[in-house]
Amino acid sequence: MTIPEDDRGLLLGDGLFETILWTQGRPALFEAHVERMTRGCAALGLPAPATDALLTAALRVMTDAGLQDRRAAVRLTWSAGSGGRGLDRPAEPSPRLIASAAPSEIPTMPARLVTASVRRNEGSPTSRLKTLAYLDNVLARREARQAGADEALMLNNLGEVACATAANLFWFEGERLVTPALACGTLDGIMRAQVLEAARGLGIETIEARVGPGVVGRGAGLFVTNSLIGVRPVGWLDGEAVAEHAGVARLSRAVSAISSSTG
Amino acid sequence: MTIPEDDRGLLLGDGLFETILWTQGRPALFEAHVERMTRGCAALGLPAPATDALLTAALRVMTDAGLQDRRAAVRLTWSAGSGGRGLDRPAEPSPRLIASAAPSEIPTMPARLVTASVRRNEGSPTSRLKTLAYLDNVLARREARQAGADEALMLNNLGEVACATAANLFWFEGERLVTPALACGTLDGIMRAQVLEAARGLGIETIEARVGPGVVGRGAGLFVTNSLIGVRPVGWLDGEAVAEHAGVARLSRAVSAISSSTG
Repeated sequence: MTIPEDDRGLLLGDGLFETILWTQGRPALFEAHVERMTRGCAALGLPAPATDALLTAALRVMTDAGLQDRRAAVRLTWSAGSGGRGLDRPAEPSPRLIASAAPSEIPTMPARLVTASVRRNEGSPTSRLKTLAYLDNVLARREARQAGADEALMLNNLGEVACATAANLFWFEGERLVTPALACGTLDGIMRAQVLEAARGLGIETIEARVGPGVVGRGAGLFVTNSLIGVRPVGWLDGEAVAEHAGVARLSRAVSAISSSTG
Repeated sequence: MTIPEDDRGLLLGDGLFETILWTQGRPALFEAHVERMTRGCAALGLPAPATDALLTAALRVMTDAGLQDRRAAVRLTWSAGSGGRGLDRPAEPSPRLIASAAPSEIPTMPARLVTASVRRNEGSPTSRLKTLAYLDNVLARREARQAGADEALMLNNLGEVACATAANLFWFEGERLVTPALACGTLDGIMRAQVLEAARGLGIETIEARVGPGVVGRGAGLFVTNSLIGVRPVGWLDGEAVAEHAGVARLSRAVSAISSSTG
């Protein structure tokens, strides 16, 4: 499949996407993904896609790829559509829906993180959205790979911890679960919300915090989350081993149960 | 023309572009544009395009559009090319060159600016490059249009003045010419460099400064620059009229002379 060269997603990063886990023959947490994309469209000033169109596109690419019975990642891309020269959108944007699917395995090893030099832009709403302008994440991930790591921990311009390039971050301070506040330029992750909800269900106190990187290193049980991997423990951060915490396995089981019980 | 749906420029904003003025039957300041794109590729870790390929593409789209004898804008887009799922690039990226052309008129009225709420990310190298991840600029421009203005003045996360969404900013303090330093998250504009060079040639003292928005309002002769418009005076900023300064017209003439004398 191809798209026109005047697509604003291509030319300007003008659009959004969702990456959805396909498991047990259906998209997991589908309503939450649709709801996030709808909120993102409101933030960008774009018309939102119809839920039916998203579901139809997801089913079609899974079928075309022959992945219906596999564990897979479905990506739904909502570009602002074709436009003329320059930054201004057409008076009535006609967004374009693009879907793709690929097999997705659960990583078996703990993640290795390094802190990237590229910062997140806490002063833009786009830092909290899954937008087509993801180049800073690409560059931070590249730094991580070059340092022999899997993922990058990203700070904002104040030096506060925000998130990873394709995941949110959590750790324990004692028995309290900590994650960076959205105001830090943190992606508003679907799995982040699931973990916070699961923690509360387990009676674990949760804190959404604005803290520097030193605080993360002093904590235990650092883990990353996203819709595809659920909860993944971090083995080391910037070359230092991360202390284990029994709460991580409990949360991992709890969110697995949520993802597999809701459509 | 179309591109594949797995293009990383589309999916992630992974790539760069140049917008080049076509005038007097040729691309203006072509070598400077090629040099900037080459530096940008080095910053992103992408292979750079061959100069011949860029020139051939520019000539082709101008001919196809029948604009050879017109004043026009040529956009050259250098996407990271096709890739698999996720943020990591293929081991050997194969970038994709996309070109387009459109007529370009010189605006006759002074620009009207408002200060946008969306900030620039001074903590990323991408804030100084013309990347395909331009969504923050799109949103800032949208704010400006909604406020009845043509362009937005963008601050960084420290509250320093950086640039406009598709232009650089200059103003006078007394007889000294001021422009925001690149470290503010300022686009490294071709016309910005031309104006600084022209000013020095005219014996005008220049300062690349890190300053808050209040300093701009106290100055005179605020103007915006880019490759297509050259020097354009600003009539008002946030509803306040900008004081005139005789230096603006002198600089405008000087850069017009440069652009039309170099290929």
